[in-house]
Amino acid sequence: MKTYRKELWLDLPARRAFVNITGEVERCLRESGIREGLLLCNAMHITASVFVNDAEEGLHADFERWLEELAPEKPHSRYRHNVGEDNGDAHLKRTIMGREAVVAVTEGRLDFGPWEQIFYGEFDGRRRKRVLVKIIGE
Amino acid sequence: MKTYRKELWLDLPARRAFVNITGEVERCLRESGIREGLLLCNAMHITASVFVNDAEEGLHADFERWLEELAPEKPHSRYRHNVGEDNGDAHLKRTIMGREAVVAVTEGRLDFGPWEQIFYGEFDGRRRKRVLVKIIGE
Amino acid sequence: MKTYRKELWLDLPARRAFVNITGEVERCLRESGIREGLLLCNAMHITASVFVNDAEEGLHADFERWLEELAPEKPHSRYRHNVGEDNGDAHLKRTIMGREAVVAVTEGRLDFGPWEQIFYGEFDGRRRKRVLVKIIGE
Repeated sequence: MKTYRKELWLDLPARRAFVNITGEVERCLRESGIREGLLLCNAMHITASVFVNDAEEGLHADFERWLEELAPEKPHSRYRHNVGEDNGDAHLKRTIMGREAVVAVTEGRLDFGPWEQIFYGEFDGRRRKRVLVKIIGE
Repeated sequence: MKTYRKELWLDLPARRAFVNITGEVERCLRESGIREGLLLCNAMHITASVFVNDAEEGLHADFERWLEELAPEKPHSRYRHNVGEDNGDAHLKRTIMGREAVVAVTEGRLDFGPWEQIFYGEFDGRRRKRVLVKIIGE
Repeated sequence: MKTYRKELWLDLPARRAFVNITGEVERCLRESGIREGLLLCNAMHITASVFVNDAEEGLHADFERWLEELAPEKPHSRYRHNVGEDNGDAHLKRTIMGREAVVAVTEGRLDFGPWEQIFYGEFDGRRRKRVLVKIIGE
């Protein structure tokens, strides 16, 4: 069995953003030399997400508006978590979008359907944060 | 290490539906010959889900009504994704229900609690779509 | 390849609660002797969750209030699942919070970011329920 591990660093200038990380994850997979197995990709922070969906800007605008409806950022006093913090909403938004994606590795490639892409979802940005890529297989 | 891969095809006549795929996933596991490991089951489409819950029709009716409350299909103009599309809601519904389930394989069986069953959730049907089953172990 | 399996039992006196199980999962990992691989931790019940987030009481109070907004417990007649049952809401709450976490194992440790902790989320307690820990690797 082979294993591979890499951290991807991001530092986004906005509080909230979606970033397509599919290319970077594919680079990790090539670097690993693993042909068959499972790949885990997860946010290492609890106010960020990794999820699989469509690379389409209108959809990302819909996600932003919808998440603000389900878990509004303001007023910050809305959240008991916000004592000396202002990111209570980010923990809830990340819960909706998910922490991680597990992807099959087949013949050395991410075994995706036609539109599947991996995104990093940032809900409390403006600082350096990490995504973990762990691959096991052979 | 052994690996196994199979695509399950579905073609549902309704826009939205839940289908119990536990039996098909169990058949994959038997076919794989894997006794100990992990099984990944994921929708290969971004408007569909794979999730674990109860095989109970009342609950599925509750899911349908609840998802329509959280992310209504109509008016289609509600979603910026719906430019030449009408499935913006399906991307959000699938996000709530989840893309994938990872299931432990123990002694050649899905290592489930008493009521756990695997479902395919369709949110934009009336065409052929796929679920991926990938198993690794030995 | 090595595999490891353990059930963690919980019996919570309240209908709803969050319990930090990180220490118990770490004990499983040490017991397994596995140094590199993947760890699956999932609720074996469909009215409970396993998720990764912050060990902060204010946040847990926010989760409780937010889940009650998104999927209120009462009136019980609100859910078609509640025929001879009263836990329709618990199935929906667990869907939001998630069934499982998959965690990378690196150098014999849970490969977590600085604030990541694993929680059991109970939404229909007052009876014995189980969490499964399955680890594969070497």
